[in-house]
Amino acid sequence: MPAELSLNLATVRKQWTMREAVDGAVRHGFAGVAPWREMVAEIGTAASARLFRDSGLRVTGYCRGGLFPAADAAGRQAAIDDNKQAIDEAAAIGAECVVLIGGGLPKGSRDLAGARAMFADGLAAVLPHARAARVPLALEPMHPMYAADRGCISTLAEMSDLCDRLGEGLGIAVDTYHVWWDPNLAREIARAGKRIISHHICDWLVPTRHMLTDRGMMGDGVIDFPAIRRMIEAAGYRGVQEVEIFSDDWWSRPGDEVLRVVMERFKTMCQP
Amino acid sequence: MPAELSLNLATVRKQWTMREAVDGAVRHGFAGVAPWREMVAEIGTAASARLFRDSGLRVTGYCRGGLFPAADAAGRQAAIDDNKQAIDEAAAIGAECVVLIGGGLPKGSRDLAGARAMFADGLAAVLPHARAARVPLALEPMHPMYAADRGCISTLAEMSDLCDRLGEGLGIAVDTYHVWWDPNLAREIARAGKRIISHHICDWLVPTRHMLTDRGMMGDGVIDFPAIRRMIEAAGYRGVQEVEIFSDDWWSRPGDEVLRVVMERFKTMCQP
Repeated sequence: MPAELSLNLATVRKQWTMREAVDGAVRHGFAGVAPWREMVAEIGTAASARLFRDSGLRVTGYCRGGLFPAADAAGRQAAIDDNKQAIDEAAAIGAECVVLIGGGLPKGSRDLAGARAMFADGLAAVLPHARAARVPLALEPMHPMYAADRGCISTLAEMSDLCDRLGEGLGIAVDTYHVWWDPNLAREIARAGKRIISHHICDWLVPTRHMLTDRGMMGDGVIDFPAIRRMIEAAGYRGVQEVEIFSDDWWSRPGDEVLRVVMERFKTMCQP
Repeated sequence: MPAELSLNLATVRKQWTMREAVDGAVRHGFAGVAPWREMVAEIGTAASARLFRDSGLRVTGYCRGGLFPAADAAGRQAAIDDNKQAIDEAAAIGAECVVLIGGGLPKGSRDLAGARAMFADGLAAVLPHARAARVPLALEPMHPMYAADRGCISTLAEMSDLCDRLGEGLGIAVDTYHVWWDPNLAREIARAGKRIISHHICDWLVPTRHMLTDRGMMGDGVIDFPAIRRMIEAAGYRGVQEVEIFSDDWWSRPGDEVLRVVMERFKTMCQP
């Protein structure tokens, strides 16, 4: 059976339009794609839905929601409304989940625990909408270096706690880049278990020259992908992996070269 | 009672020699200093001991040891020998502890769990020497963004586990920069309790432009210093705080300006 890999379209966002990237994904044998909201907005949800359907590809995730913390009630409500809209878009384009991240501290705030509570509150507020739309929300902890400005929820343990509290309709996204360092990784992947609905891959480079745009191609860094995949399969998830690489380096290369290397590394470096 | 603050000499290492920095620390009302090994090596341990004694300052820590993981047995033994030497130097200069960090992955390795085990083994190997010298080892977890190349031990929980296993002679260093993001911070500081023997302060800037040399002056970033200090005091540590800022920005300013701002921010931003 061929390896199943999905392409997060951020990986080639500087080289290609969404249409070009979908064509590239088909050409290189990907099983699916994961688009971002701004890409879908550019051609509209109806045209996007058609594009994905005609491609024969799965839409393994929709990026992204969450980001609930805000400085005031109006801001928090705006985030909730925006997440509901993202859920509707995901349903319209046939996405299998919406990926949610914590969001950063509100401007001027030093209250990380408060931001985390706002994430939980926002999540609770949009969950009925997600259930009604039958779109699971994939909760993605982000590396602690993003705790201040992007992802205030840093660990799988926190996301599993939220799943325990809020129940049905939630899942977990395990992104190797964000969780590889976790001393409790094996335990927390096992705990996430059947809730795992998304598995992203991306390597950690040494040195990392930029905190956002110097992520690595699998095999170029220090992450042990086979080991993490074994944990994930042991937890019950055997589905598609999704490659997502934010990289000034790879964004500067031709899209076909990037996808060729991605597919090769996926086959040689990422199998359990 | 005046605030008690120690100066980690890395904070002004680009502006000043160790002698100049010690003079500066006295001039600005610091209670102590924490030198680095290369600074002490430059003038020798005997002259360093005299310098500190004559200054009337405490030597609140000696930087640094640990870094046990290595690619082969010879490398690991070299690290153990080097740590014993650091302990002897610390005793000679009257340092109150040696600060130990995890160290990175051996070159070419993707085995983070293995590196962590090597840290534990190295620690166990040097601990009798530290006990005999009556120099406590302050175990400092480092921010997860350093897990690959500097500090494979990322959390207070892991360091407390090591203290539980190895016993007497070990303590914990809580550096706000490394632990502020930890969702279990309050619990793990409480658990560390009386083992806390070192409390470093440094702020997290948004954005952080460089992973090593863009650390922040207290008050310029997002860390809630009073909240963390309250946790630490509740755990039973009421000792000196130690400022340690690696920053291209602050290194480019006159040393007296840096120490003036440090002392001012310590008084206004870091009290419980």
